[in-house]
Amino acid sequence: MTEFSSVLLENAVNELARLPGIGRKTALRLSLFLLKEEVMRAEALAQAIVKLRNGIHFCPRCNNIADQDLCAICSNPRRDENTLCVVEDMRDVMAIEKTAAYNGLYHVLGGVINPIEGIGPNELTINKLIERFDHEKINELIFALPATVEGDTTGFYLFRQLKAKGCKITSIAKGVAIGDALEFADEVTLGRSMMNRIPFDAG
Amino acid sequence: MTEFSSVLLENAVNELARLPGIGRKTALRLSLFLLKEEVMRAEALAQAIVKLRNGIHFCPRCNNIADQDLCAICSNPRRDENTLCVVEDMRDVMAIEKTAAYNGLYHVLGGVINPIEGIGPNELTINKLIERFDHEKINELIFALPATVEGDTTGFYLFRQLKAKGCKITSIAKGVAIGDALEFADEVTLGRSMMNRIPFDAG
Repeated sequence: MTEFSSVLLENAVNELARLPGIGRKTALRLSLFLLKEEVMRAEALAQAIVKLRNGIHFCPRCNNIADQDLCAICSNPRRDENTLCVVEDMRDVMAIEKTAAYNGLYHVLGGVINPIEGIGPNELTINKLIERFDHEKINELIFALPATVEGDTTGFYLFRQLKAKGCKITSIAKGVAIGDALEFADEVTLGRSMMNRIPFDAG
Repeated sequence: MTEFSSVLLENAVNELARLPGIGRKTALRLSLFLLKEEVMRAEALAQAIVKLRNGIHFCPRCNNIADQDLCAICSNPRRDENTLCVVEDMRDVMAIEKTAAYNGLYHVLGGVINPIEGIGPNELTINKLIERFDHEKINELIFALPATVEGDTTGFYLFRQLKAKGCKITSIAKGVAIGDALEFADEVTLGRSMMNRIPFDAG
């Protein structure tokens, strides 16, 4: 006899436990929840997963997740087509969209350069970004990359590749979070904030 | 435009976020994980969920989760048919099976009496338990119910209903911390509780 008295239950637990951050106890709890639910609701979940995986595609222009040909941002005529924000993945697009502080387009790299995990420039959509300069008139390129060694490496790499294009290249400000007390900010962040200080009446 | 640039992604996040303990951020993380996976793996998860919900049935004898007619425990000729352990739900069966301290059969109540949540004796499989005394020779009835007010209430109710049947009624030792659900007890403690069971009216 296996751990479970039901092979069906065991399969469900095994499949759910493969998801990141979900262990076997959580997978069992989720399975028992699904068992108690209406059949239709469990099927709706299963269908949403299959449709997501089979139906999704990526915007051929910016690599953001999309349902139609171009993603909702690229196909929006109200967006500023001459500004491009480079991000690691589509979660960053959502995070920036939530701020309502940006009205340009995006370019989703699909990751950052990380030699330890075997992710080099060719694993990312960097060539596609370079090609965009041939077809699009880009005035400003904004790097909104993670504030990590890998994010910095990727930024430097892109800067070297793209500085000859003649457009303005900026990076989102890295510093003390709004609402944070200075004493709780870590030294590196606070040091960077100090180094990258800006005219008071510009902030 | 919605929070997500894709309706498919939004559906998947909505469905996943309905699961207990999974918020929208976790649901998004899981969806993005599924997106990066092989199509086959995402389909395997979806199928496991549908099969679980459609294919599962419950043992007509003990109400445990089962694939065939009788569950794997009831249909095992090596189990002691004259000892019955009464538990709240199938997770408790798994927890007790893991201790290897018990070789009898089970009776899964499907809950405990909880007037606040509207769960009375008729919502549980108590009548089925009483009927089992007509067909089966039960020498000992062991209550392995949660060490909570509801568990105690259920135990007392069952004791009143069943003491006339003339079988020995015991309860697992309350080595299990008061207020804890059985599924979270460590195996040694739970095994000891099973070994040190005492007459129900002495506890």
